[in-house]
Amino acid sequence: MNAPDNALLTRQQLYRDMDPHHLTPLWEVLHALVPPRPATPCVPAHWKYGEVRPFLMRAGEAITAEEAVRRVLILENPALRGQSAITQSLYAGLQLILPGEIAPAHRHTQSALRFIVEGSGAWTAVDGERTSMHPGDFIITPSWTWHDHGSEADGPVVWLDGLDIPMIRFFDAGFAENSQAKSQQVTRGEGTSFARYGHNMAPVRHEAPFGATSPIFSYPYERSREALDRLERDAPVDAYDGVKLRYVNPLTGGSPMPTMATFMQKLPAGFDGQGWRQTDGAVYSVVEGTGSVDIEWGGQRRRFEFGPRDHFVVPSWHTARLASQAGCVLFSFSDRPVQQALAIHREERLS
Amino acid sequence: MNAPDNALLTRQQLYRDMDPHHLTPLWEVLHALVPPRPATPCVPAHWKYGEVRPFLMRAGEAITAEEAVRRVLILENPALRGQSAITQSLYAGLQLILPGEIAPAHRHTQSALRFIVEGSGAWTAVDGERTSMHPGDFIITPSWTWHDHGSEADGPVVWLDGLDIPMIRFFDAGFAENSQAKSQQVTRGEGTSFARYGHNMAPVRHEAPFGATSPIFSYPYERSREALDRLERDAPVDAYDGVKLRYVNPLTGGSPMPTMATFMQKLPAGFDGQGWRQTDGAVYSVVEGTGSVDIEWGGQRRRFEFGPRDHFVVPSWHTARLASQAGCVLFSFSDRPVQQALAIHREERLS
Amino acid sequence: MNAPDNALLTRQQLYRDMDPHHLTPLWEVLHALVPPRPATPCVPAHWKYGEVRPFLMRAGEAITAEEAVRRVLILENPALRGQSAITQSLYAGLQLILPGEIAPAHRHTQSALRFIVEGSGAWTAVDGERTSMHPGDFIITPSWTWHDHGSEADGPVVWLDGLDIPMIRFFDAGFAENSQAKSQQVTRGEGTSFARYGHNMAPVRHEAPFGATSPIFSYPYERSREALDRLERDAPVDAYDGVKLRYVNPLTGGSPMPTMATFMQKLPAGFDGQGWRQTDGAVYSVVEGTGSVDIEWGGQRRRFEFGPRDHFVVPSWHTARLASQAGCVLFSFSDRPVQQALAIHREERLS
Amino acid sequence: MNAPDNALLTRQQLYRDMDPHHLTPLWEVLHALVPPRPATPCVPAHWKYGEVRPFLMRAGEAITAEEAVRRVLILENPALRGQSAITQSLYAGLQLILPGEIAPAHRHTQSALRFIVEGSGAWTAVDGERTSMHPGDFIITPSWTWHDHGSEADGPVVWLDGLDIPMIRFFDAGFAENSQAKSQQVTRGEGTSFARYGHNMAPVRHEAPFGATSPIFSYPYERSREALDRLERDAPVDAYDGVKLRYVNPLTGGSPMPTMATFMQKLPAGFDGQGWRQTDGAVYSVVEGTGSVDIEWGGQRRRFEFGPRDHFVVPSWHTARLASQAGCVLFSFSDRPVQQALAIHREERLS
Repeated sequence: MNAPDNALLTRQQLYRDMDPHHLTPLWEVLHALVPPRPATPCVPAHWKYGEVRPFLMRAGEAITAEEAVRRVLILENPALRGQSAITQSLYAGLQLILPGEIAPAHRHTQSALRFIVEGSGAWTAVDGERTSMHPGDFIITPSWTWHDHGSEADGPVVWLDGLDIPMIRFFDAGFAENSQAKSQQVTRGEGTSFARYGHNMAPVRHEAPFGATSPIFSYPYERSREALDRLERDAPVDAYDGVKLRYVNPLTGGSPMPTMATFMQKLPAGFDGQGWRQTDGAVYSVVEGTGSVDIEWGGQRRRFEFGPRDHFVVPSWHTARLASQAGCVLFSFSDRPVQQALAIHREERLS
Repeated sequence: MNAPDNALLTRQQLYRDMDPHHLTPLWEVLHALVPPRPATPCVPAHWKYGEVRPFLMRAGEAITAEEAVRRVLILENPALRGQSAITQSLYAGLQLILPGEIAPAHRHTQSALRFIVEGSGAWTAVDGERTSMHPGDFIITPSWTWHDHGSEADGPVVWLDGLDIPMIRFFDAGFAENSQAKSQQVTRGEGTSFARYGHNMAPVRHEAPFGATSPIFSYPYERSREALDRLERDAPVDAYDGVKLRYVNPLTGGSPMPTMATFMQKLPAGFDGQGWRQTDGAVYSVVEGTGSVDIEWGGQRRRFEFGPRDHFVVPSWHTARLASQAGCVLFSFSDRPVQQALAIHREERLS
Repeated sequence: MNAPDNALLTRQQLYRDMDPHHLTPLWEVLHALVPPRPATPCVPAHWKYGEVRPFLMRAGEAITAEEAVRRVLILENPALRGQSAITQSLYAGLQLILPGEIAPAHRHTQSALRFIVEGSGAWTAVDGERTSMHPGDFIITPSWTWHDHGSEADGPVVWLDGLDIPMIRFFDAGFAENSQAKSQQVTRGEGTSFARYGHNMAPVRHEAPFGATSPIFSYPYERSREALDRLERDAPVDAYDGVKLRYVNPLTGGSPMPTMATFMQKLPAGFDGQGWRQTDGAVYSVVEGTGSVDIEWGGQRRRFEFGPRDHFVVPSWHTARLASQAGCVLFSFSDRPVQQALAIHREERLS
Repeated sequence: MNAPDNALLTRQQLYRDMDPHHLTPLWEVLHALVPPRPATPCVPAHWKYGEVRPFLMRAGEAITAEEAVRRVLILENPALRGQSAITQSLYAGLQLILPGEIAPAHRHTQSALRFIVEGSGAWTAVDGERTSMHPGDFIITPSWTWHDHGSEADGPVVWLDGLDIPMIRFFDAGFAENSQAKSQQVTRGEGTSFARYGHNMAPVRHEAPFGATSPIFSYPYERSREALDRLERDAPVDAYDGVKLRYVNPLTGGSPMPTMATFMQKLPAGFDGQGWRQTDGAVYSVVEGTGSVDIEWGGQRRRFEFGPRDHFVVPSWHTARLASQAGCVLFSFSDRPVQQALAIHREERLS
């Protein structure tokens, strides 16, 4: 037995001896703990609405909204099965509500976004104020506010739920309560919050009603779309993003929720974008039109051809390129505000 | 000669001796320097539009916009004549522009607000983007941006100018430049800034284009009025203010300009408000309707009965009470954000 | 077979059918995803210095600092073995450096704190400035700054490393680089950063040199201890914390690093504290003296009797009570600033 | 009479007619209101301590501290006589307190700084905590806090008072109260505030005790001087400022008071500085050593040769150059934080 082997044996013995004391050597794992660049376990994935919708409708038959509390099919990242996560930090699911149903009132630490995918006539209620849902609307449920959903529609209504569930679990900071009442009492007219804060004005005397979270519950598609159309016509189109806006909390200029950033972008007809990568993995919901995304990482490559109501995920530090023959509109969300608060966010635009 | 007289003489001799050295005794003026409560030199004043308008029209005949550079009648506080000030820190004037005229391009450190009083069809241009003016619109010119005004209207257009001129003079920090070109070249479609920032969204990649000043140039009356109407119907009416909103910089939630706060409020029909006082003297422009304001200070009292397009000023720490039989809408502005930055703002609501 | 069984079968069939599409039913896991209160997998743990030190010394014989890059024994939470984590979001380890050794220069996204446990005469260098280490000093390495360590001491020097490694891994945002040079060139005298920013003063012209991270590298124990002694004498002692101060970034008043808060507290002799719980699990290093901590959760209870240089961890939402017969000084750190940025931090003081 | 004369007469008539309505034409004064660059009425001035001190001592005989309330000789700008102002926005005076005297307790909206010029053994008390004064110490009295001064010294103690009196008067926002008690009761040991906030640490549970104002009352010269000496030795000397630090509020990194910035700088022996100008006029107090300042504006030029305890003022946008043969230390203050809050501050370094 030679010297190096001896050294190795000495170390192995040390590892064994200290293991019961909950001690472990850094030098055996340092490279993995401090990698040269992000090495996410997540993979790109694409959920075609044509394939997902039948399962949603079967779920509508298999369980009621009330029994399910929330009748949602979770979009699980194929590499994170069993973790209810679409990226390491984010949860995404498609929720179905049928005519006359109620998804009962509860509240939790987790913040939620709703992006309406199909159907009109459902509503969500937050702290006593109802908001109607229309396709393309972006609606929020601030952390720790009572909320319930219901539908007076003729047919099914489906929306994308985006939550920070994995983040709150990671930080061990989640609380939740169920309400005694199935549905909250309505105490304010619909649109009151928007009238107070949505028009570049605010009450003279007020505190931010939901702290770091936006005081308006709904960002209607009508206005977002109008802004994108306007800018497509009058301002230069970005070579990477087309025309892209981020939603803001009108009291701070920051993201609508402290844990998630949300975006709406339009790719003009004929758009053939350049590649970029960023440390915040992003979840996309296709609002209108068709297009494609090319994703590259570590020598691998995937291409998704997407159509209306499809969903897909681009993981951290994967290079993505968007393109559209006929033009399209995309909603997306990520954990960017958290990465910015931690001062760790990076992005790179490739030429 | 007795002892006190002797002491007095000693002091007087000291004062005379040190005066050439630019020294003066605090104890002779302390009470005035540090008063128990604000003792503003300003007085309440009221400019009835019916009385002011004829002078504006005569000014329109007496001088061209181009020769005047800005054809404005300054609303001077009766107690501050010759200082071009409506309160100690603020300037207000009514500007007239006639069909086909141009008020030539310049820029200055001073921030300006425009509140449209009469006529449609004029425009203001800021940094290459024109904005159309309609009665009730609130429009801003950020500090140090090139701006010019013009009119394609059929008749006269009049607006209220509110500027921080006395403040910038007080802090000895004013700069100004005239442009070579009479009128700026238009480089962006009208409404581009509003499309970028006005819909509770913002560009993904941007810096605040005007620093602490709002990136949108115009807050259209249509939307402000809609918000007030909505809240009058659905939310409790404040006993002092009726329904009152402040305009916000959508990137910060703060005031549209760092030096001036702006407000729009609606007094419902039959409103008989309670009294309040605040350290920021405020300038009001009556948008619609009629009403009255009672102002009390130091045992004195004034009452102004106001109608559409009238202007009035409530000085610092004067108690004011608003009332309206038929309902009315009021625009107002003050130096509140400065007082808040200096941590000296106070207000008191009297029961 | 009866109806409920039928429904169950229908659901099971649905789950099986949609599984290949990366879809999974929320309602089967909702309760675990949105728990009524934090249910951390972490457990309380205690590392007695007398037990850990021999392993550190054996590590000093088994591997050089240069070969190890960082010769550290990781304090692994007994319930998170293999994850290099002491809480879900934090990493802690004890680093040993022997006379004459160099731990070579590298940089990484992860922020690091060093809390000196034993020995004087080692140094750490950040961006060209060396800082000497003394027991009780709290020293930081800002994210993405070059750093190396070395020792001119006579004997072993040991410090606690606290890093946000699990957090950066969770957010998939880690980058790292090794330097060509083993040790950085010294370009500034020791103490220059402290002279610039450490005395409640700052350079007139400067940008925050490390963004959200403190511009001073070292918080010497001498001064922290002086503050605690002073307050123990002159100010009321808190029934839960004794005398407790948080370290601040002197340019913001916030935590020294965006990802970790750090604290120093003194329990006066005879202190018998009341219980509290908080959502940020905390890691403690005993600076001087002896004492005990009682930890309760879910009907379980642990008591640790601690002495100088011991380390222990109190997980999220576990009730803790501190006591000390003879008095003691404790350093601690947690992920509180992140929880505050996410607006999810909670704490509760039990009476 | 020709046409222009006619036009002139028309205008004059208009001016006369509208004058009783408190209306005045902007175009006659526009240039003065919006000047191309700052045209301050202030002039440079220099108060030699050898000339001022005898008047202070005569004041000590002519009036007691108690009768005077504050026995201060105001340093009045020669161009602003009668306004109790050294620049348009700032007040400065030299206060004398004799052995055994008390300057009785009061409080006011105005913020005050004290910079100790001569003598040790006096104290100031703020909110129940006394602070001892030593030459070179910078001490603050936050807005609206009770404060009184006294002396247990053997001889006279003199300090510079810097206040925002003209600013608070300009904004009509001043309040004041006298205390029933001549001197406040001491409720905290001296140095408690510094122990809490002065060592780059802060209490775990606290609100900023004085809002935007620094929670520490004293910045001792010993530490400021140590920082300057250290930087003179180890860091590059600035060609304009020598070695210059600004005092900071340790809870924000901003200025110690919202209305005034304060600075301490050292000119090394042989320093011959370059010229600069800034919109904030600055008041200087010479701590140690001798030197000179050259001031230029509008074709004029002044040179002041200064020695210990001298004071001088450099007005807005006047070019200044500092020099020192033997080295010197200067304290200074200005209204810079206000100008920064208003986004109007400018400075220019001339090459």
